Amino acid sequence: MMKSFLNVEDLGDLKQALAEAREIKANRYKYDTLGKNKTLLMVFFNNSLRTRLSTQKAAMNLGMNVIVLDVNAGAWKLETERGVIMDGDKSEHLLEAIPVMGCYCDVIGIRSFAGLTDREYDYAETVYHQFVQYSGKPVFAMETATVHPLQAFADLITIEEQTHPQPLLCREGSQDATTISSSPHKGEAGRGSVPKVVLTWAPHPKSLPQAVPNSFAQWMLAAGVDFVVTHPEGYELDPRFTKGARIEYDQRKAFEGADFIYAKNWSCPGVTNPDNYGKILHDYHQMMHWTVDAEHMSWTNNAKFMHCLPVRRGMIVTDDVIEAPTSLVIPEAANREISATVVLKRILQSMK
Amino acid sequence: MMKSFLNVEDLGDLKQALAEAREIKANRYKYDTLGKNKTLLMVFFNNSLRTRLSTQKAAMNLGMNVIVLDVNAGAWKLETERGVIMDGDKSEHLLEAIPVMGCYCDVIGIRSFAGLTDREYDYAETVYHQFVQYSGKPVFAMETATVHPLQAFADLITIEEQTHPQPLLCREGSQDATTISSSPHKGEAGRGSVPKVVLTWAPHPKSLPQAVPNSFAQWMLAAGVDFVVTHPEGYELDPRFTKGARIEYDQRKAFEGADFIYAKNWSCPGVTNPDNYGKILHDYHQMMHWTVDAEHMSWTNNAKFMHCLPVRRGMIVTDDVIEAPTSLVIPEAANREISATVVLKRILQSMK
Amino acid sequence: MMKSFLNVEDLGDLKQALAEAREIKANRYKYDTLGKNKTLLMVFFNNSLRTRLSTQKAAMNLGMNVIVLDVNAGAWKLETERGVIMDGDKSEHLLEAIPVMGCYCDVIGIRSFAGLTDREYDYAETVYHQFVQYSGKPVFAMETATVHPLQAFADLITIEEQTHPQPLLCREGSQDATTISSSPHKGEAGRGSVPKVVLTWAPHPKSLPQAVPNSFAQWMLAAGVDFVVTHPEGYELDPRFTKGARIEYDQRKAFEGADFIYAKNWSCPGVTNPDNYGKILHDYHQMMHWTVDAEHMSWTNNAKFMHCLPVRRGMIVTDDVIEAPTSLVIPEAANREISATVVLKRILQSMK
Repeated sequence: MMKSFLNVEDLGDLKQALAEAREIKANRYKYDTLGKNKTLLMVFFNNSLRTRLSTQKAAMNLGMNVIVLDVNAGAWKLETERGVIMDGDKSEHLLEAIPVMGCYCDVIGIRSFAGLTDREYDYAETVYHQFVQYSGKPVFAMETATVHPLQAFADLITIEEQTHPQPLLCREGSQDATTISSSPHKGEAGRGSVPKVVLTWAPHPKSLPQAVPNSFAQWMLAAGVDFVVTHPEGYELDPRFTKGARIEYDQRKAFEGADFIYAKNWSCPGVTNPDNYGKILHDYHQMMHWTVDAEHMSWTNNAKFMHCLPVRRGMIVTDDVIEAPTSLVIPEAANREISATVVLKRILQSMK
Repeated sequence: MMKSFLNVEDLGDLKQALAEAREIKANRYKYDTLGKNKTLLMVFFNNSLRTRLSTQKAAMNLGMNVIVLDVNAGAWKLETERGVIMDGDKSEHLLEAIPVMGCYCDVIGIRSFAGLTDREYDYAETVYHQFVQYSGKPVFAMETATVHPLQAFADLITIEEQTHPQPLLCREGSQDATTISSSPHKGEAGRGSVPKVVLTWAPHPKSLPQAVPNSFAQWMLAAGVDFVVTHPEGYELDPRFTKGARIEYDQRKAFEGADFIYAKNWSCPGVTNPDNYGKILHDYHQMMHWTVDAEHMSWTNNAKFMHCLPVRRGMIVTDDVIEAPTSLVIPEAANREISATVVLKRILQSMK
Repeated sequence: MMKSFLNVEDLGDLKQALAEAREIKANRYKYDTLGKNKTLLMVFFNNSLRTRLSTQKAAMNLGMNVIVLDVNAGAWKLETERGVIMDGDKSEHLLEAIPVMGCYCDVIGIRSFAGLTDREYDYAETVYHQFVQYSGKPVFAMETATVHPLQAFADLITIEEQTHPQPLLCREGSQDATTISSSPHKGEAGRGSVPKVVLTWAPHPKSLPQAVPNSFAQWMLAAGVDFVVTHPEGYELDPRFTKGARIEYDQRKAFEGADFIYAKNWSCPGVTNPDNYGKILHDYHQMMHWTVDAEHMSWTNNAKFMHCLPVRRGMIVTDDVIEAPTSLVIPEAANREISATVVLKRILQSMK
């Protein structure tokens, strides 16, 4: 049984996963009886728009029932230690709460953001793994402390669509390579070529988690694209996610020849200096030259612009770039339904 | 495709709509497979009881999936201007948020009340039309800044039931007029007669939108009833909704001969003096003679009493009037399920 | 029609109810078309985790649609008196709100806790009975002011499973008593023996309702177990729930020979002194000798430990006792789905 979906390796062969994504996108109700009498419990410790809607939609595509639980962090504090006299504000212990939640469902999705104060706690994915250990049910991440795999999978689907717009099954069934080689798609100068994908830091007024850039790096490296990360010094992502990526502190050099620009802010991951974990290293007013504008895009190979949303215009990206025909932010969001449908389908199939 | 449901004309022929309402009421699950694999997204920018429940019920009558999104206005502020550096409290731009919401559903319902400070913004139905323009999906009003068409349609169904209690299809199929002409129903002194319907302002301690009276006026005029509006001077409704109605400032004169009294408070629509938009023009203690009580009802033709709910007793209406057998407030609420089912059915059928 | 589920007698023959519970547990989707086009409305005036999830799951097991309404007590205050001028913070009267809610569903579940200030109001189950009277639909308690029957039914199912682990239908069908008499199950020294079940008060820092102990007592007495209640003087439960039970103020004596220990805190029920209703009679620091620990459990007949959850460790029970293999807290919670499925099934069947 597929017990957890946190990292790219939990999905196995990516080519196969992308083929399934294409199959679902062609008919998102193809498996609409697979989830009959199966219930998804979505547990939100934090706010959500895209994940809330797209994951519900995905579950309903598969004929599942859905229960949404918004855990108000203030009202429902969980004790995590043993040996404590619980006479304070925590009214339930996770050792009871999690197995109980597992009783009433078949699959559990967890949204639980990084606290950004205790690096070790966050990077151990403590809350997520407690659900895996104590719920007795398959668990998947709907953005946890350090990863957002449904977003990264949707981003990969989006890049793949741009690179190979033909349905994979048709393309593979065809003996005629002409269509492909003659198409002006990204990264297809030759059949063996791969697109250049650049993950760029951009300024933001608030301290944000590293979940999206961590997962994006992990998935791009697994997919084998030409992957570059660019950010100001001090914002180095954890090597467990970026091992094998090129790090380029000069944003302009990083952008040169890029086919895809993926912009995102993140706070200091605390790799070089753990004391800085979760901090904003420079006032954002001094970092506005990192904002992706038309000039930045002019350095690229007519790159597509990507962002996971929500995005602050004028900080991360300018209006003209995000509104241009080369912007993929809405297709990325739309593919969240597809990535979630594939992951839930996999989990359901593994339960049979 | 039926892309929007905001005004009475969006529904086309009212006789046909009423016939469909009767069909649904006779068997509200008649079309329970029409919505298979279609998802309704209900977006609430404001609180709701009747609309929340009745619209969900309507969608489920049709076999649709439903996702409810309560937008906490404080937590999720949308930027609406271009060219802004979003470094404040607004974390997402509507130009992204609305298309994203459109990705995960097939139909969108919007509740977004008037702010009651900027008349032009409210009466342009800015938020609603942004959803129509940017979501890419059919949109319907679940009370917006200036209209509440699902309520007005339910009110019309209720009046029609009182006037012609026989199912329309039977009545039309019958050659026997005796049953009808011998029935003591409202407004049926002769076959060609129409009921007299009076919309009356009533006092309230808070400043309320004009959405309900606007739509009620619009729908009554379209239905061709004998329609009178009565209110203190200064509360004139926007003529785009009341054109063709008689305005009578003397409440007693208005009530004379009435078959239906529809009570409702509204704040100043700002028609004669835009500076007064959204204001309460007189302390309500001075306006209590407008409260609909037994004496008021004695001026009428044994009229039925109507209100959209929630209603403040003792302000809008007295206990005895709202509890009398002539009170239609619960049947009106019950017909909210019917009006919403008809509208969603129409939207779904237009998508085939 | 089964119009209300509040007390144990509303379920009729308990042996039959337990047989149905076993049938559902063996196949919880056996009646998955019974609820087609039937809608459950769950109305929460208070927070909920187990009830929210398990009751939704139960309804979905039966193929029902579910609408969840969280009534924010602050935002939606209901007027309950007649003859009032509603110019304050209450914007709707229950005489309208309840029939309206009844319009949009087929069955209503109510969660409405005791206020713990007005004993008469709480013990009259005022809010619950208003729903029964005015909604026009079958109503069931999801913990009300004085009872929590879905919990008590789940507790009874759990005790029965421990006492008679064989499915009842098989056991009754068999003529061979050997299997049963040779099994080392609780309370089965002989075929006619019954388990000893002890409800024990335990300390808690906050003032809690009596709903869970009231219902537990009522159901245990109806089931005919050997039932003992133990608590400090002054915490006597209302005799309408405990009539026929032994009350033992010496906790150690009560525990002797017990097969099941059910721990729970409750505030003063105000039986002997109405002025103390809802109060905590002693600072909890002075009552910690009532906490169920290993020594307490050593007084018993190797009893199973039970609690309805959420539980405060170190106050009600120690870590070692709740984590021991003899702890039934998770099976009890799991049986909430079963008790709710049986009750909803009964209600649906009574509507045919």
